[in-house]
Amino acid sequence: MNFIDSSICLENCMLASSSVYRRQLFLIRSLGGYCCRVHMEGGGRAMSSSLSTLGADAEGVMQKITPKLDPSLYKGQAGKVAVIGGCREYTGAPYFAAISALKIGADLSHVFCTKDAAAVIKCYSPELIVHPILEESYSVRDDEKATVSAKVLGEVKKWMERFDCIVVGPGLGRDPFLLNCVGDIIRQARDAKIPTVIDGDGLFLVTNNLDLVKGNSLAILTPNVNEYKRLVEKVLQCQVNDEDAYEQLSSLARSIGGVTILRKGKTDLISDGFTVNEVSIFGSPRRCGGQGDILSGSVAVFSSWARHHLSTKTNESSMQSSLNPMVLGSIAGSALLRKAASLAFENKKRSTLTTDIIECLGKSLEDICPAF
Amino acid sequence: MNFIDSSICLENCMLASSSVYRRQLFLIRSLGGYCCRVHMEGGGRAMSSSLSTLGADAEGVMQKITPKLDPSLYKGQAGKVAVIGGCREYTGAPYFAAISALKIGADLSHVFCTKDAAAVIKCYSPELIVHPILEESYSVRDDEKATVSAKVLGEVKKWMERFDCIVVGPGLGRDPFLLNCVGDIIRQARDAKIPTVIDGDGLFLVTNNLDLVKGNSLAILTPNVNEYKRLVEKVLQCQVNDEDAYEQLSSLARSIGGVTILRKGKTDLISDGFTVNEVSIFGSPRRCGGQGDILSGSVAVFSSWARHHLSTKTNESSMQSSLNPMVLGSIAGSALLRKAASLAFENKKRSTLTTDIIECLGKSLEDICPAF
Repeated sequence: MNFIDSSICLENCMLASSSVYRRQLFLIRSLGGYCCRVHMEGGGRAMSSSLSTLGADAEGVMQKITPKLDPSLYKGQAGKVAVIGGCREYTGAPYFAAISALKIGADLSHVFCTKDAAAVIKCYSPELIVHPILEESYSVRDDEKATVSAKVLGEVKKWMERFDCIVVGPGLGRDPFLLNCVGDIIRQARDAKIPTVIDGDGLFLVTNNLDLVKGNSLAILTPNVNEYKRLVEKVLQCQVNDEDAYEQLSSLARSIGGVTILRKGKTDLISDGFTVNEVSIFGSPRRCGGQGDILSGSVAVFSSWARHHLSTKTNESSMQSSLNPMVLGSIAGSALLRKAASLAFENKKRSTLTTDIIECLGKSLEDICPAF
Repeated sequence: MNFIDSSICLENCMLASSSVYRRQLFLIRSLGGYCCRVHMEGGGRAMSSSLSTLGADAEGVMQKITPKLDPSLYKGQAGKVAVIGGCREYTGAPYFAAISALKIGADLSHVFCTKDAAAVIKCYSPELIVHPILEESYSVRDDEKATVSAKVLGEVKKWMERFDCIVVGPGLGRDPFLLNCVGDIIRQARDAKIPTVIDGDGLFLVTNNLDLVKGNSLAILTPNVNEYKRLVEKVLQCQVNDEDAYEQLSSLARSIGGVTILRKGKTDLISDGFTVNEVSIFGSPRRCGGQGDILSGSVAVFSSWARHHLSTKTNESSMQSSLNPMVLGSIAGSALLRKAASLAFENKKRSTLTTDIIECLGKSLEDICPAF
């Protein structure tokens, strides 16, 4: 399915339904045209429709939302993202997330981290713009905390509205003062309506402060097995139930007020509380640390592209606005990481590292969405 | 067309005209032999002549001005450039500009930046000579400012006359104290008759302090879409008018007293207020940040070479001195970046980054100007 064909197909199909409910059902089924399985929550009852094989379907999402490259574009129009993360201990994670965004096709990628982390992250690559502005408790006296916190927020605020998406959490660490500042940054992004992908230590922060994301439909949480367990226990106050995985995930997303959750696992499950989507294309059996960071950077770019795609298509078909760009971005990010990991593993086998996977992002995307 | 042929062709043609006006016209048309289109401002009326296809023409400029490699040359004779830029936030941009100069063929490439940026830029490459001498406001007390500023200028002055060209602006940032010092460095370069390419935050500085470049025919400004908008608004006190793009650019260059302006865009337009040249060879649709830095470094090297070429040829034909080396250098830099970007994009497609383009500079130039 190429970009134009899928677009025509979707729009033609859309003309066939009229009522609000049928429209929603139809749109979800259209989305099902991209994904292996779509489960829809309607009146408390789950309905499923397995419409086609996954590989081609997730590829259809990517083809649909990835913008055409056009020589008349100028710098920034293919995406500007920022990663909030990187501290004295962790520097690789924010680099992986930020460089992955560029390798997929974003034009500019920033990192906001602590002073200790900044020089190291800069040295990994001259392509990133690294702001050494976060502070950890050890470097701030108690009587300075309010001033320093206000200064950090002021610095981030100068940039926030320029970003199409931010990623909060890779290599953030758990310093209480730093996490407190980052909580304020999450609020700032929400006020500015900037989509926010939350991973790693960012999930530790929001699990303990659910109001930071509650009701924010532009937030995407990307928990791994342990982070998901903590979220379920905190929000649903029960244990993870894999027999009812779809319903539990959907219920969790609804309970946090319509955020999108990408539950990472052997199969990635994605829900915004209304639909549950599954991406199970084979990736790699290597579980080297850092793959989650590639995912968060990728989801940030694809979500921005999906949001832009749907907003520009609204004039052609207002029904498309009912599709959730955060869900589409999560599907695309999940599928691309798996494809790149698979390609890297073919070459490097047990010695596959995260940087090898990052080097395969370009070819993997090109195979699905040729630049021309 | 090889170096010798094009040289003979130009000199033969030159014998055909006599009066000052016809000489100017002829020289511009000769330049038109290199470029897709040349528009000439004469008595307020624009004349155009489209003489040949662009690719070969811009290549003709490169072949003409690129010096032959000769085993009897010694270090420095193929060019010594310096980049003034690099601060706490930005380190990639000055690196891109400085390493591009070396990759094209300059012998020595220096960077003058802040202490914070220096160690990082040094880590990007051992090929660069990095001077950690600039200071930002946060590291200087008010009562120290005059002393620090004098010290910075003294340090730069020791080196200035050794350079064939300086690039001011990549990753400079907008700290007022730092910009004030850099304004003095621009004056110092002008006094020493050192060609000066101004890009990025350097353009922010000169747009607000036009006297820094006014009347300096050795200055080249390389604005992108937003920087050009600010320049037009400040100098011409009107909006950008793309229907009259040639005339407006030419008028802008004249209003700033004959500086050369390279207006970056889908097509690059270059004017010194007398001619307007267009470089539209297809580059790449990728707009990743950093390509402007490659351009500024490249223009610096080619302008130096053009200046040297024209000065050594003056004895043979005094008419060549009417050609503007800053314009020739801008044409060559623009065309080379586009060719390298195109080559990088062939391989890397959407994942093309600035470092990939830099790696293609050498092959792109070699294809046009073989070393032997």
